[in-house]
Amino acid sequence: MTERLSDTGRGPLLEPLKATGWCVEETRDALSKTFTFEDFTQAFAFMTRAALWAEKWDHHPEWSNIYNRVSVTLTTHDAGGLTPLDAKLARKMDQLAQ
Amino acid sequence: MTERLSDTGRGPLLEPLKATGWCVEETRDALSKTFTFEDFTQAFAFMTRAALWAEKWDHHPEWSNIYNRVSVTLTTHDAGGLTPLDAKLARKMDQLAQ
Repeated sequence: MTERLSDTGRGPLLEPLKATGWCVEETRDALSKTFTFEDFTQAFAFMTRAALWAEKWDHHPEWSNIYNRVSVTLTTHDAGGLTPLDAKLARKMDQLAQ
Repeated sequence: MTERLSDTGRGPLLEPLKATGWCVEETRDALSKTFTFEDFTQAFAFMTRAALWAEKWDHHPEWSNIYNRVSVTLTTHDAGGLTPLDAKLARKMDQLAQ
Protein backbone atom coordinates (compact mmCIF):
# COMPACT_ATOMS: atom_id res chain seq x y z
CA MET A 1 0.00 0.00 0.00
CA THR A 2 1.18 3.50 -0.76
CA GLU A 3 1.89 5.41 2.47
CA ARG A 4 0.40 8.76 3.33
CA LEU A 5 2.76 11.66 2.71
CA SER A 6 4.79 12.60 5.77
CA ASP A 7 5.11 16.20 6.92
CA THR A 8 8.59 16.42 5.47
CA GLY A 9 7.70 14.59 2.27
CA ARG A 10 4.74 16.82 1.38
CA GLY A 11 6.53 20.02 0.43
CA PRO A 12 8.69 18.77 -2.42
CA LEU A 13 5.77 16.87 -3.97
CA LEU A 14 2.95 19.35 -3.41
CA GLU A 15 4.59 22.74 -3.93
CA PRO A 16 5.12 22.24 -7.69
CA LEU A 17 1.49 21.12 -7.98
CA LYS A 18 0.21 24.18 -6.11
CA ALA A 19 2.15 26.24 -8.61
CA THR A 20 0.08 24.72 -11.43
CA GLY A 21 -3.23 25.38 -9.70
CA TRP A 22 -3.81 22.38 -7.44
CA CYS A 23 -5.10 23.17 -3.94
CA VAL A 24 -4.99 21.08 -0.82
CA GLU A 25 -8.53 21.08 0.51
CA GLU A 26 -9.18 22.58 3.91
CA THR A 27 -11.60 19.92 5.12
CA ARG A 28 -9.77 16.80 3.97
CA ASP A 29 -6.31 15.71 2.89
CA ALA A 30 -6.98 15.86 -0.85
CA LEU A 31 -5.78 17.74 -3.93
CA SER A 32 -8.29 19.58 -6.10
CA LYS A 33 -8.17 21.42 -9.40
CA THR A 34 -10.64 22.54 -12.02
CA PHE A 35 -9.52 22.24 -15.63
CA THR A 36 -11.23 24.38 -18.25
CA PHE A 37 -11.25 23.45 -21.91
CA GLU A 38 -12.55 24.90 -25.14
CA ASP A 39 -15.68 22.77 -25.26
CA PHE A 40 -17.20 19.45 -24.17
CA THR A 41 -15.27 17.33 -26.67
CA GLN A 42 -11.96 18.70 -25.37
CA ALA A 43 -13.04 18.20 -21.76
CA PHE A 44 -14.18 14.64 -22.35
CA ALA A 45 -11.09 13.80 -24.39
CA PHE A 46 -9.03 14.85 -21.36
CA MET A 47 -11.15 12.66 -19.09
CA THR A 48 -10.75 9.70 -21.41
CA ARG A 49 -6.98 10.00 -21.49
CA ALA A 50 -6.84 10.48 -17.72
CA ALA A 51 -9.17 7.51 -17.19
CA LEU A 52 -6.74 5.20 -18.97
CA TRP A 53 -3.89 6.25 -16.67
CA ALA A 54 -6.11 6.05 -13.60
CA GLU A 55 -7.05 2.48 -14.47
CA LYS A 56 -3.48 1.55 -15.38
CA TRP A 57 -2.25 2.79 -12.00
CA ASP A 58 -5.37 1.51 -10.21
CA HIS A 59 -5.82 4.94 -8.68
CA HIS A 60 -9.04 6.71 -9.56
CA PRO A 61 -10.05 10.36 -9.26
CA GLU A 62 -13.26 11.81 -7.89
CA TRP A 63 -14.27 14.09 -10.72
CA SER A 64 -17.15 15.97 -12.22
CA ASN A 65 -17.79 17.52 -15.59
CA ILE A 66 -20.05 20.33 -16.69
CA TYR A 67 -19.64 21.08 -20.38
CA ASN A 68 -16.07 22.39 -20.77
CA ARG A 69 -15.02 22.09 -17.13
CA VAL A 70 -13.61 19.11 -15.28
CA SER A 71 -13.20 19.34 -11.50
CA VAL A 72 -10.87 16.76 -10.03
CA THR A 73 -10.22 15.66 -6.45
CA LEU A 74 -7.43 13.26 -5.68
CA THR A 75 -6.82 11.40 -2.45
CA THR A 76 -5.92 7.86 -1.43
CA HIS A 77 -8.82 6.37 0.52
CA ASP A 78 -6.82 3.35 1.70
CA ALA A 79 -4.18 5.61 3.24
CA GLY A 80 -6.63 8.17 4.63
CA GLY A 81 -5.06 11.08 2.76
CA LEU A 82 -2.54 12.14 0.14
CA THR A 83 0.14 9.74 -1.07
CA PRO A 84 2.80 9.99 -3.78
CA LEU A 85 0.29 8.32 -6.13
CA ASP A 86 -1.99 11.37 -5.92
CA ALA A 87 0.89 13.65 -6.83
CA LYS A 88 1.79 11.34 -9.71
CA LEU A 89 -1.75 11.36 -11.11
CA ALA A 90 -1.99 15.14 -10.63
CA ARG A 91 1.20 15.65 -12.63
CA LYS A 92 -0.08 13.32 -15.35
CA MET A 93 -3.37 15.23 -15.56
CA ASP A 94 -1.50 18.53 -15.90
CA GLN A 95 0.48 17.00 -18.72
CA LEU A 96 -2.62 15.60 -20.46
CA ALA A 97 -4.44 18.93 -20.19
CA GLN A 98 -1.75 20.86 -22.00
CA MET B 1 -34.79 26.27 -28.64
CA THR B 2 -36.45 23.42 -26.81
CA GLU B 3 -39.25 24.66 -24.59
CA ARG B 4 -39.54 23.94 -20.90
CA LEU B 5 -41.99 21.15 -20.07
CA SER B 6 -45.48 22.39 -19.34
CA ASP B 7 -47.41 21.23 -16.28
CA THR B 8 -49.52 18.93 -18.44
CA GLY B 9 -46.57 17.70 -20.51
CA ARG B 10 -44.44 16.68 -17.56
CA GLY B 11 -46.31 13.65 -16.31
CA PRO B 12 -46.18 11.46 -19.40
CA LEU B 13 -42.47 12.17 -19.90
CA LEU B 14 -41.26 12.10 -16.31
CA GLU B 15 -43.32 9.33 -14.70
CA PRO B 16 -41.64 6.52 -16.68
CA LEU B 17 -38.26 7.99 -15.75
CA LYS B 18 -39.12 8.18 -12.07
CA ALA B 19 -40.01 4.50 -12.33
CA THR B 20 -36.41 3.75 -13.41
CA GLY B 21 -34.86 5.73 -10.56
CA TRP B 22 -34.68 9.32 -11.83
CA CYS B 23 -35.70 12.01 -9.32
CA VAL B 24 -36.80 15.55 -9.93
CA GLU B 25 -34.66 17.68 -7.63
CA GLU B 26 -36.37 19.72 -4.93
CA THR B 27 -34.25 22.83 -5.34
CA ARG B 28 -34.16 23.08 -9.13
CA ASP B 29 -36.04 21.79 -12.14
CA ALA B 30 -33.61 19.00 -12.95
CA LEU B 31 -33.53 15.21 -13.20
CA SER B 32 -30.95 13.26 -11.20
CA LYS B 33 -29.90 9.66 -10.98
CA THR B 34 -26.89 7.73 -9.73
CA PHE B 35 -25.82 4.74 -11.79
CA THR B 36 -23.74 2.02 -10.15
CA PHE B 37 -21.52 -0.32 -12.15
CA GLU B 38 -19.24 -3.23 -11.45
CA ASP B 39 -16.04 -1.21 -11.52
CA PHE B 40 -14.40 1.91 -12.93
CA THR B 41 -13.99 0.55 -16.46
CA GLN B 42 -17.72 -0.17 -16.67
CA ALA B 43 -18.60 3.23 -15.27
CA PHE B 44 -16.31 5.07 -17.63
CA ALA B 45 -17.46 3.00 -20.61
CA PHE B 46 -21.00 4.18 -19.82
CA MET B 47 -19.83 7.78 -19.61
CA THR B 48 -18.04 7.48 -22.94
CA ARG B 49 -21.10 6.12 -24.69
CA ALA B 50 -23.33 8.75 -23.10
CA ALA B 51 -20.84 11.50 -24.01
CA LEU B 52 -21.16 10.63 -27.70
CA TRP B 53 -24.95 10.99 -27.56
CA ALA B 54 -24.71 14.17 -25.51
CA GLU B 55 -22.42 15.74 -28.08
CA LYS B 56 -24.53 14.46 -30.99
CA TRP B 57 -27.65 16.05 -29.48
CA ASP B 58 -25.70 19.09 -28.26
CA HIS B 59 -27.14 18.52 -24.81
CA HIS B 60 -24.66 17.83 -22.05
CA PRO B 61 -25.11 16.40 -18.59
CA GLU B 62 -23.72 17.61 -15.31
CA TRP B 63 -22.13 14.49 -13.98
CA SER B 64 -19.61 13.15 -11.52
CA ASN B 65 -17.82 9.86 -11.16
CA ILE B 66 -16.28 8.14 -8.19
CA TYR B 67 -14.90 4.72 -9.09
CA ASN B 68 -17.94 2.61 -10.05
CA ARG B 69 -20.60 5.31 -9.58
CA VAL B 70 -21.79 7.96 -12.00
CA SER B 71 -24.16 10.65 -10.71
CA VAL B 72 -26.00 12.52 -13.43
CA THR B 73 -28.04 15.71 -13.38
CA LEU B 74 -29.97 16.80 -16.45
CA THR B 75 -31.56 20.17 -17.08
CA THR B 76 -31.74 22.63 -19.95
CA HIS B 77 -30.00 25.85 -18.93
CA ASP B 78 -31.29 27.81 -21.92
CA ALA B 79 -34.88 26.96 -21.00
CA GLY B 80 -34.43 27.38 -17.24
CA GLY B 81 -35.61 23.86 -16.45
CA LEU B 82 -36.57 20.48 -17.83
CA THR B 83 -37.34 20.03 -21.52
CA PRO B 84 -38.12 16.98 -23.66
CA LEU B 85 -34.40 16.83 -24.46
CA ASP B 86 -33.62 16.01 -20.83
CA ALA B 87 -36.12 13.18 -20.86
CA LYS B 88 -34.66 11.92 -24.14
CA LEU B 89 -31.10 11.88 -22.76
CA ALA B 90 -32.30 10.27 -19.52
CA ARG B 91 -33.96 7.46 -21.50
CA LYS B 92 -30.81 6.99 -23.59
CA MET B 93 -28.66 6.78 -20.44
CA ASP B 94 -30.96 4.15 -18.95
CA GLN B 95 -30.61 2.18 -22.17
CA LEU B 96 -26.80 2.54 -22.23
CA ALA B 97 -26.49 1.47 -18.60
CA GLN B 98 -28.28 -1.82 -19.11
